[in-house]
Amino acid sequence: MTLVEAALAGERRALARLLSLVENGAAEGREALATLFPRTGHAHIIGITGSPGAGKSTLLNRLAREFRNRGTTLAIVAVDPTSPYSGGALLGDRLRMRDLVTDEGIFIRSMASRGHPGGVAYATRDVALTLDAVGFPIILVETVGAGQAQVDVARVAHTVVLVEAPGMGDDIQALKAGLMEIADILVVNKSDRAEARQTVSALQAVLHGAPPAGHHGPAVAEAGEPEAFVGGWEVPILQTSALENEGIAELVDTIEGHRDYLHTSGQWGRILKRHARAEVEAWLQRHLLLLLEEHVGEARLEEAVGVVLRHEQDPATVARELLQTLWLPGEK
Amino acid sequence: MTLVEAALAGERRALARLLSLVENGAAEGREALATLFPRTGHAHIIGITGSPGAGKSTLLNRLAREFRNRGTTLAIVAVDPTSPYSGGALLGDRLRMRDLVTDEGIFIRSMASRGHPGGVAYATRDVALTLDAVGFPIILVETVGAGQAQVDVARVAHTVVLVEAPGMGDDIQALKAGLMEIADILVVNKSDRAEARQTVSALQAVLHGAPPAGHHGPAVAEAGEPEAFVGGWEVPILQTSALENEGIAELVDTIEGHRDYLHTSGQWGRILKRHARAEVEAWLQRHLLLLLEEHVGEARLEEAVGVVLRHEQDPATVARELLQTLWLPGEK
Repeated sequence: MTLVEAALAGERRALARLLSLVENGAAEGREALATLFPRTGHAHIIGITGSPGAGKSTLLNRLAREFRNRGTTLAIVAVDPTSPYSGGALLGDRLRMRDLVTDEGIFIRSMASRGHPGGVAYATRDVALTLDAVGFPIILVETVGAGQAQVDVARVAHTVVLVEAPGMGDDIQALKAGLMEIADILVVNKSDRAEARQTVSALQAVLHGAPPAGHHGPAVAEAGEPEAFVGGWEVPILQTSALENEGIAELVDTIEGHRDYLHTSGQWGRILKRHARAEVEAWLQRHLLLLLEEHVGEARLEEAVGVVLRHEQDPATVARELLQTLWLPGEK
Repeated sequence: MTLVEAALAGERRALARLLSLVENGAAEGREALATLFPRTGHAHIIGITGSPGAGKSTLLNRLAREFRNRGTTLAIVAVDPTSPYSGGALLGDRLRMRDLVTDEGIFIRSMASRGHPGGVAYATRDVALTLDAVGFPIILVETVGAGQAQVDVARVAHTVVLVEAPGMGDDIQALKAGLMEIADILVVNKSDRAEARQTVSALQAVLHGAPPAGHHGPAVAEAGEPEAFVGGWEVPILQTSALENEGIAELVDTIEGHRDYLHTSGQWGRILKRHARAEVEAWLQRHLLLLLEEHVGEARLEEAVGVVLRHEQDPATVARELLQTLWLPGEK
């Protein structure tokens, strides 16, 4: 039995080894992924992101339990900047996840946020695709900390939950812009805090106060789309207290509601298409960069950097000239 | 007199128009930048980043005033996700910056976080380089909101100040990892809050508690570097209350101290080299992508996406085959 077959048969250790191959981007992993690819497309991939201090880990734990209570198995992918070299070897090494590890219906994968040849975005997507292929119906992808990861999660997930703590002040305006780009559901966690109610009101005013009502969020139809897609998804603002286990059932209801919305509105297919296109474009870039590395070489690159450092030429010009000496596109 | 000459002569409106050309990445802007490039390399570029709610805007305002009190002129580049289409037309449109606008010694540039052909990172860097070239000794680059911008600022700045509010709880561990990647100075703002002292202590324990002491932060020498570079920069943790104007002078002292450290340790040159290399690599990618767009074309790309959507082939394989049909690298 191959590793892929063993993973498909439900062997946890085989799956863990397969994920390491996939995550590392080695040839063996890429082959496995190519084999598994026709089996993907069934899971609901849910991204959980937010600022440091929002309490994402505790919330994720509560979410996982609530999904389990509803009878589904699930996988958790935790992108973890605190263990850059772990390579996912330690399952459930994060404090809040320890009590999930003993549950046979939950598969936890810790991923390092660094050390992936193609970047963590690719690795996360490949890991999620593998978990999808082996049959997990729900995949929670948590990104810890701020930065690139918050943006990348939108490339992986069908539903993005943005978790923030109360007390954002003027930055609510900034959050609005971020929301429009990535979030489908907004959660104000730590609702036990005094300023929680005020934060929710301010968010509601910012997000839903201005006309045209009902046309907010990432699901709003683009110009030129058939009218059936118009209507959109109004980003709901929920309050939770992960610590007190409050608001969790409502959050899972809303996540399931978003999935239903995606299916009935036709957005699901559009997300898949957007993901597929992003993937193809990303792989085109990745292959090109490999070609570049192969054919430019360190010496020439260093030479070009030297020209820039001496302020003789700007980086754009240096790069263009470097490319021109190397190859020209063939005839179409 | 050309636009570049007028901007170099100190004409504010010419500079604003020049920045629009540069920001938009049009041919005219790229030419201007190529002309100005030999004049760059003198400014101290300071990135200000952090989570929503940390109070960055108010802090930036205070910082700008303190720098002005010390007799220097300065430029502020505010990457603003709330005005995606402003194109920088409204200077000082953000509430907290209004009282800076009347100061002749401060030049404020609001930049949209979207709508840049090459991404906001390129646009920010090009705007900062232009401000450097026309002679601003201090350039503050503020990124609002979380996401990509926080990562990008490290590609632009010599000194990165990470601003957080008290009360991060377990996410301090996550913050540590982020810190190691980007921050030179850590600020716990809103020090009037009850939990501020505790947050600072926890951060100190996480950042400086573990041996080997004195080897933290991004300035630690890489393997194989001459020993003169060993020693590094221990990321300082400062408390400020931007609202109460407390801790601001100390923060500016620390920023200036970091600049002095960069110069005396030789790190300054290494940062310039790292930036130059990142720029050349980024432009290589950008030129390649333009070639790709030109030669692949929408029809072929859509065809490839369709193959992926039907689960016939995985994105990596589709992309590789697409490239192979198009061109092959020429002889070296």
